Amino acid sequence: MTGKGEPPRTAARRPAAVRPLPIAVDTMGGDHAPGEVIAGAVEAVREHGVRVVLVGRAPLIRRELDRHGTVGQIPIVHADEALDMGEGALASRRKPRSSVAIACHLIKQGRASALVSAGSTAGVVATSRLRLKGQQGVMRPAIAVTLPTRPRPTILLDAGATVDVKPEGLVQFAALGTAYAQILTDLERPRVGLLTIGSEPGKGDKVTKRAHELLAGGSHGIEFAGNVEGHDLLSGAVEVIVTDGFTGNVALKTMEGAIRTAFSEIRTAMTSSPPARMGALLQRRRLQELRDRLDPDSYGGGVLLGLNGTVVIAHGASHARAITSACELAHRLAAGRIVERIREQVAATRTSRFGRWTHGERDGADKTPDKPSDRTPDKPAAPPAADTPREGEPPWPLNGDTSPERSEPRPPRTE
Amino acid sequence: MTGKGEPPRTAARRPAAVRPLPIAVDTMGGDHAPGEVIAGAVEAVREHGVRVVLVGRAPLIRRELDRHGTVGQIPIVHADEALDMGEGALASRRKPRSSVAIACHLIKQGRASALVSAGSTAGVVATSRLRLKGQQGVMRPAIAVTLPTRPRPTILLDAGATVDVKPEGLVQFAALGTAYAQILTDLERPRVGLLTIGSEPGKGDKVTKRAHELLAGGSHGIEFAGNVEGHDLLSGAVEVIVTDGFTGNVALKTMEGAIRTAFSEIRTAMTSSPPARMGALLQRRRLQELRDRLDPDSYGGGVLLGLNGTVVIAHGASHARAITSACELAHRLAAGRIVERIREQVAATRTSRFGRWTHGERDGADKTPDKPSDRTPDKPAAPPAADTPREGEPPWPLNGDTSPERSEPRPPRTE
Repeated sequence: MTGKGEPPRTAARRPAAVRPLPIAVDTMGGDHAPGEVIAGAVEAVREHGVRVVLVGRAPLIRRELDRHGTVGQIPIVHADEALDMGEGALASRRKPRSSVAIACHLIKQGRASALVSAGSTAGVVATSRLRLKGQQGVMRPAIAVTLPTRPRPTILLDAGATVDVKPEGLVQFAALGTAYAQILTDLERPRVGLLTIGSEPGKGDKVTKRAHELLAGGSHGIEFAGNVEGHDLLSGAVEVIVTDGFTGNVALKTMEGAIRTAFSEIRTAMTSSPPARMGALLQRRRLQELRDRLDPDSYGGGVLLGLNGTVVIAHGASHARAITSACELAHRLAAGRIVERIREQVAATRTSRFGRWTHGERDGADKTPDKPSDRTPDKPAAPPAADTPREGEPPWPLNGDTSPERSEPRPPRTE
Repeated sequence: MTGKGEPPRTAARRPAAVRPLPIAVDTMGGDHAPGEVIAGAVEAVREHGVRVVLVGRAPLIRRELDRHGTVGQIPIVHADEALDMGEGALASRRKPRSSVAIACHLIKQGRASALVSAGSTAGVVATSRLRLKGQQGVMRPAIAVTLPTRPRPTILLDAGATVDVKPEGLVQFAALGTAYAQILTDLERPRVGLLTIGSEPGKGDKVTKRAHELLAGGSHGIEFAGNVEGHDLLSGAVEVIVTDGFTGNVALKTMEGAIRTAFSEIRTAMTSSPPARMGALLQRRRLQELRDRLDPDSYGGGVLLGLNGTVVIAHGASHARAITSACELAHRLAAGRIVERIREQVAATRTSRFGRWTHGERDGADKTPDKPSDRTPDKPAAPPAADTPREGEPPWPLNGDTSPERSEPRPPRTE
């Protein structure tokens, strides 16, 4: 595990700093913004030594910092607008000066190492894809979430960033997840499982079966452990579980709902009779600890992987504690050089396996698809060419820096 | 709810019986066969007045019945072979005299109303698809499972019978689920939700988004309540949750795994200190009741809908209690005329909505697909023409009765 005090060895354009770059915290996203968000950020600074910069309406932030007695100790970058919780992809274009857009700009400028936001997932994903762009070689980004298994957490991706995925996309998710798990678990070769409906290789839908073939065919840097099933989300059988954003999102919400229901029913059962209530008093502390561990509000949130910068998306309902965890996680990933690791991991995957499906072609453009359905443009993009926009997506480029000037945020003013 | 004593108004070829037809119980499927299976069937007969016929190795069955003191009271039909637990689709062709195949034959002959098996899901699904054939008008069958919500159960389908589904297939699943829920919940118009990744209509993958359009476009007999998400599996928000067999299987196993983990962790927490252990003693009974309700072994198993006969698939790990529940469920569905209800429901759906996607054509054969990817043969089949075999499936017909004579089981001998 990379120590907290270690300076991040990040991209060359960033100044060689003794101290790590701060984490940009979006103070305007989330159900309990700005109060709980700022409280969580202050806690991260005070108790965990994480450097942060607060992005949002400066007067509001100052008022909150005043309550914590930390005015002048934490830098503030002003932003006028917030992404509304209901806003999706379009908001990212309509609001070039939103707090999330400004925070992304800080990362691009090398003034922050990562972004933490509890804003609407769709809005944060769209804005950061637009502002930070996809990493070289990464076809589609994925949201990785950490499940509360023991002794090591299990990483599930994609939890909802990319819903219609090709088999090749799932292989890349395996590479993204491997890079993430290396930092989080300290394992050199974390085991990767493919989420499907049976343990045998032939089980699954068409996309999953093909992804299994690709993953099993060779493994430059990916320790493929075969298929896993729904009950493995909490079994700790592997460190990384790979699936498409549709299945992953449904599975994650199902798991959270089931745990919540189990606890709520148990609480009812425990207080349904006088002796049971007496029993509940005796167990209160242990059960609270357990509840805390399994509660999405503590382990929850996700990391958007595959962009030119680390984006940690906390639950919309995050209280201070969840924001503190998110800041710590962002700090750890930045210190672990997640973007560079992903670049290396994906490059290794391309060398070993992309050759199999592009038949050695260097450029996806002249690739002859095997089947008509292969014609959708979710191809392995040859860097550094700009990606073609995909169906149902806003037409901004994922790679390359060709977004119209007017949609770029003006340089933020720091206080 | 249809009373238990009511004779089933089933297909014309069945003799008009005063008593309902028996349930054929496969005594050779499941981890605890034949002992627990027969014990469960005996319980269903004794305590719940369900008529059963036991299918399997006659000497073994007689020995077990002897232990329960019920020799001569429950009919036995001999079958030589069992489907192995690991066996999948191919076994159904290789073993025309398996206990499941013989049980299906009893249904076709009008000598049983339904089949109960705890055998391998893949094997039971494949065998009953081959032997019973798909119902007229039903494109693909689905496995419906009952989730332990209150006050009414929630039905989730498909839990794994059909993994690559078209939007039209999801609409049909809504019809199958509606028919099932009508019997199980006594509601005339049970609410149907579409499982996806957000409540707004535009959320989901391509298939789900299109299915939403079709379901929202009109509703002859389907009470479409919009999108539901993973946490709604246990929220009781709707009576029927529709999804493809891949997502449904992953979600179901995720839910079961999460509930098991929660209980196991809670047990650990409850017994981790002397006062907590004391508390646990005081709550034992209530928690056991709750555990029983949420345990897949009691609510678990699924019903294969869309064939010319009712097939209840119990968990492979079923003990006697689960088999008894499965027999009761099979009895209830047969008494509720599930096959006829599905026929009516699907016919209503075709009238109202199939017209939308086939543009009024009566025969799917000359339908011009909109996109190349639409060319997969999961088309709305025009009955009574035999279905084209689908990719990855054994080439037997789903509709029509054209299977080769040699694969038909010989008439079983009854004792």
